[in-house]
Amino acid sequence: MCFTSSCCTAVRDPAMSTNKGAGGAGGGGKKKKEVKKETKLGMAYKKDDNFGEWYSEVVVNSEMIEYYDISGCYILRPWAMEIWELLKEFFDAEIKKLKLKPYYFPLFVTENVLQKEKDHIEGFAPEVAWVTKSGKSDLEAPIAIRPTSETVMYPYFSKWIRSHRDLPLKCNQWCNVVRWEFSNPTPFIRSREFLWQEGHTVFANKEEADEEVLQILELYRRIYEEFLAVPVSKGRKSEMEKFAGGLYTTSVEAFIPNTGRGIQGATSHCLGQNFAKMFDITFENEKGERSMVWQNSWAYTTRSIGVMVMTHGDDKGLVLPPKVAPVQVIIIPVPFKDADTTAIKGACESAVYTLNQAGIRADLDARENYSPGWKYSQWEMKGVPLRIEIGPKDLANKQVRIVRRDNGTKVDIPSTDLVEQVRLLLNVIQVNLFETAKQKRDACIAPISTWDEFTAALNDKKLILAPWCDEEEVEKDVKARTKGELGAAKTLCTPFDQPDLPSGTVCFASGKAATKWSFWGRSY
Amino acid sequence: MCFTSSCCTAVRDPAMSTNKGAGGAGGGGKKKKEVKKETKLGMAYKKDDNFGEWYSEVVVNSEMIEYYDISGCYILRPWAMEIWELLKEFFDAEIKKLKLKPYYFPLFVTENVLQKEKDHIEGFAPEVAWVTKSGKSDLEAPIAIRPTSETVMYPYFSKWIRSHRDLPLKCNQWCNVVRWEFSNPTPFIRSREFLWQEGHTVFANKEEADEEVLQILELYRRIYEEFLAVPVSKGRKSEMEKFAGGLYTTSVEAFIPNTGRGIQGATSHCLGQNFAKMFDITFENEKGERSMVWQNSWAYTTRSIGVMVMTHGDDKGLVLPPKVAPVQVIIIPVPFKDADTTAIKGACESAVYTLNQAGIRADLDARENYSPGWKYSQWEMKGVPLRIEIGPKDLANKQVRIVRRDNGTKVDIPSTDLVEQVRLLLNVIQVNLFETAKQKRDACIAPISTWDEFTAALNDKKLILAPWCDEEEVEKDVKARTKGELGAAKTLCTPFDQPDLPSGTVCFASGKAATKWSFWGRSY
Repeated sequence: MCFTSSCCTAVRDPAMSTNKGAGGAGGGGKKKKEVKKETKLGMAYKKDDNFGEWYSEVVVNSEMIEYYDISGCYILRPWAMEIWELLKEFFDAEIKKLKLKPYYFPLFVTENVLQKEKDHIEGFAPEVAWVTKSGKSDLEAPIAIRPTSETVMYPYFSKWIRSHRDLPLKCNQWCNVVRWEFSNPTPFIRSREFLWQEGHTVFANKEEADEEVLQILELYRRIYEEFLAVPVSKGRKSEMEKFAGGLYTTSVEAFIPNTGRGIQGATSHCLGQNFAKMFDITFENEKGERSMVWQNSWAYTTRSIGVMVMTHGDDKGLVLPPKVAPVQVIIIPVPFKDADTTAIKGACESAVYTLNQAGIRADLDARENYSPGWKYSQWEMKGVPLRIEIGPKDLANKQVRIVRRDNGTKVDIPSTDLVEQVRLLLNVIQVNLFETAKQKRDACIAPISTWDEFTAALNDKKLILAPWCDEEEVEKDVKARTKGELGAAKTLCTPFDQPDLPSGTVCFASGKAATKWSFWGRSY
Repeated sequence: MCFTSSCCTAVRDPAMSTNKGAGGAGGGGKKKKEVKKETKLGMAYKKDDNFGEWYSEVVVNSEMIEYYDISGCYILRPWAMEIWELLKEFFDAEIKKLKLKPYYFPLFVTENVLQKEKDHIEGFAPEVAWVTKSGKSDLEAPIAIRPTSETVMYPYFSKWIRSHRDLPLKCNQWCNVVRWEFSNPTPFIRSREFLWQEGHTVFANKEEADEEVLQILELYRRIYEEFLAVPVSKGRKSEMEKFAGGLYTTSVEAFIPNTGRGIQGATSHCLGQNFAKMFDITFENEKGERSMVWQNSWAYTTRSIGVMVMTHGDDKGLVLPPKVAPVQVIIIPVPFKDADTTAIKGACESAVYTLNQAGIRADLDARENYSPGWKYSQWEMKGVPLRIEIGPKDLANKQVRIVRRDNGTKVDIPSTDLVEQVRLLLNVIQVNLFETAKQKRDACIAPISTWDEFTAALNDKKLILAPWCDEEEVEKDVKARTKGELGAAKTLCTPFDQPDLPSGTVCFASGKAATKWSFWGRSY
């Protein structure tokens, strides 16, 4: 249930009304006149019944997202941005240990430079947004908005790198990128503008590049598993699914049991020497010879927040892992008639203070125009991991009641144990969310060996683990044979953690000798 | 002098060569074949002789900026971005104390919404960049890239705000904005894309809005004076110069003695109720009546870094205030032949470690392919506040030599006093840079009382303090009468710190009764 004035607005309405009556200024629409309708209680959709609508409702009602009047663009509200900031704080500190330096390259790139690497531009061309006018004047030539920054940066890498002493070069930027996609815009998951970090690194040899690809992939795994409590598989992308223009792509892949779809969590690419060739990035090595560099690029985006919402959310709303929860503990006074309201409020304030001092993100909901029950529901909607209730009985017994968001269990603990118990519970919840999600994900993994088993598992929304011959033509063929309303099946990744592949095992799709196990399925 | 391979590239060459011979990929150009030419020593221009060229050279040679192949767009390199991150760390923590919340609103805005507030759009229309195509398809309607986000945000403020309990609403975002200006693009100072923070706040009454305008302005003063060591004047903008569509604008104004131009450092606007009216942002007050909100918006940008460069830089390059220097102390080993190189290097490493442990940003330049003299010059170019030299004599005497960047003075100090002395010197330099800049700025202030004195002071590159009648027509008239190659004179601000205005004082331009002292001059 949800009771604030601003969090229960209708969802799924990107084309917003501009009729607000006299003086109504368009764009924001839908207000005031519909207040009554909008104070309806709780979530209208259930996660298992209508996942798509449930997701839209939960991101809006938890106040993470506001739909914007341009389709595929979304407003990120503090409840989302504070999570993004927490993830950024971790990741930025980690890459600075790896000697990454902060850069900011322009949003714009000329057509000429954008098209320098052919495979790369083919991959991105249909989604590129073009600026053609400023004020009322036409630009001399259209200018593209970056869909990613390889072509923006690499001409300058060519300029900056001369000697082996200039290597490695390690750039990272936190910025927005634009990909004007037309299929199924979804908050966080698929949006026309999104926030990300993009790392671009240059090395003297392949060994160093290969090593970094995996260092970064491990950081991405930690973001998902340690922070967002989302289980992921590390692996390598197929030739068809790798980054356009790169040598090979590694990724962390998550899975959404409700839809039976895989979702790419983040990618760490080795670009090899392909861009180096196109952009003439060479250096003089120790022997005085001219050599070509090796490059990587890697990124994770605000999509990660969406994957987390899909994984943990339930019919009451969002469920946040403590490590990324903007508020980890919400404290709610529970006054009864005739009770000493001042003393209760004092105890609540003191609890907030004690927890904050211990580095725990705790907050007090002291609003007097909402009942405790209403507040419980609202903070459940927002996914806060722990709720503390303090009423007259608690005050008398020198205790507080703690309620877990993840499983609803309640426990009364002595006020003197507050910090210790809260810290313990937050850790338990973090682990529990991950373990629960992992069990659900693992239960979806279907090892198969034949085409019939494959199609049955696909219909059954499984994460398919199949022996494969690793041939591009075969993946194309599987795509063609499975295409339909729900989208075709494709490889998600070839996991690094490979089960045994007995000799003589054949590819599920081609009957040729299988060389590896790969994850297959539909994907976001 | 400058000796790294990458920092001495030619300046002022936004239209980069695309001829790199066989395999040459355009965009980056200018490399390898010109290595010899580019290893020339030091700065080609002097600050007092050719300020414009000197500025371009110093931002490029210090490795803050790389010119980009789209005019008016610049690459911010780590030496600039690390300063931006230090400023952001301070400012973001301060506004979070004021309960500002992080948001991210889209880069794009529809034509319809952008044009909602007429004065506002008139102010920005000529500079707006328009996206009209995605891939090969025309968009249904052109979409603007935000030049600022009032019109992006306020339709949603209208939706979110219903009751007095929803106020104040306090949003801040760190992002890029685009203003496609055509006059004199200059790195940091005037660029087509720049980074900033924009705060947007909504209050129930004017008093709270007024109070916040000044709280934020004080933070901007601290960024300039306490961090960048640049003296600024707080004041109010004239009606002509205020923010388009707002009620009144306050600003911090800096002054560049070399060019005799004022430069707006940051602005804190009270928007009044104008946008509230246009976007229908109202709330139910405590009495149950519908009221219109009061709004502010405020911003500072990467321009601040440029103002700092102009203020402190000298003929050897950049001079960085210690508080924002990415490296505060550079330690350079000075081996002599037959000296114990290992011991010297060990002493240097130990000094770096000791300083880092004390929270001082110190680094070691252990490169063996450059002489100490070369390194001195390079770190002077980059503006590092303190250089520590350690040679055989220093080792024997258990001392280090410290050299100040701001005034070149050298001092030998016992190694045991290292942290204490470095900390002291960094503080002294921070204060000295500010005091020196303030003296220079103050020496340019010319209080005048007549038109003849005004034009003389203008020709003399003064920061003119003039008694004024505060009439818009008079400012227009002054602009018209002073226009020419160097640009017209205008008001910079009416400083809060007002000198005595004896009754009977008349306006320098109109002869009417003067109501205030205002700063006038040419500006960036």
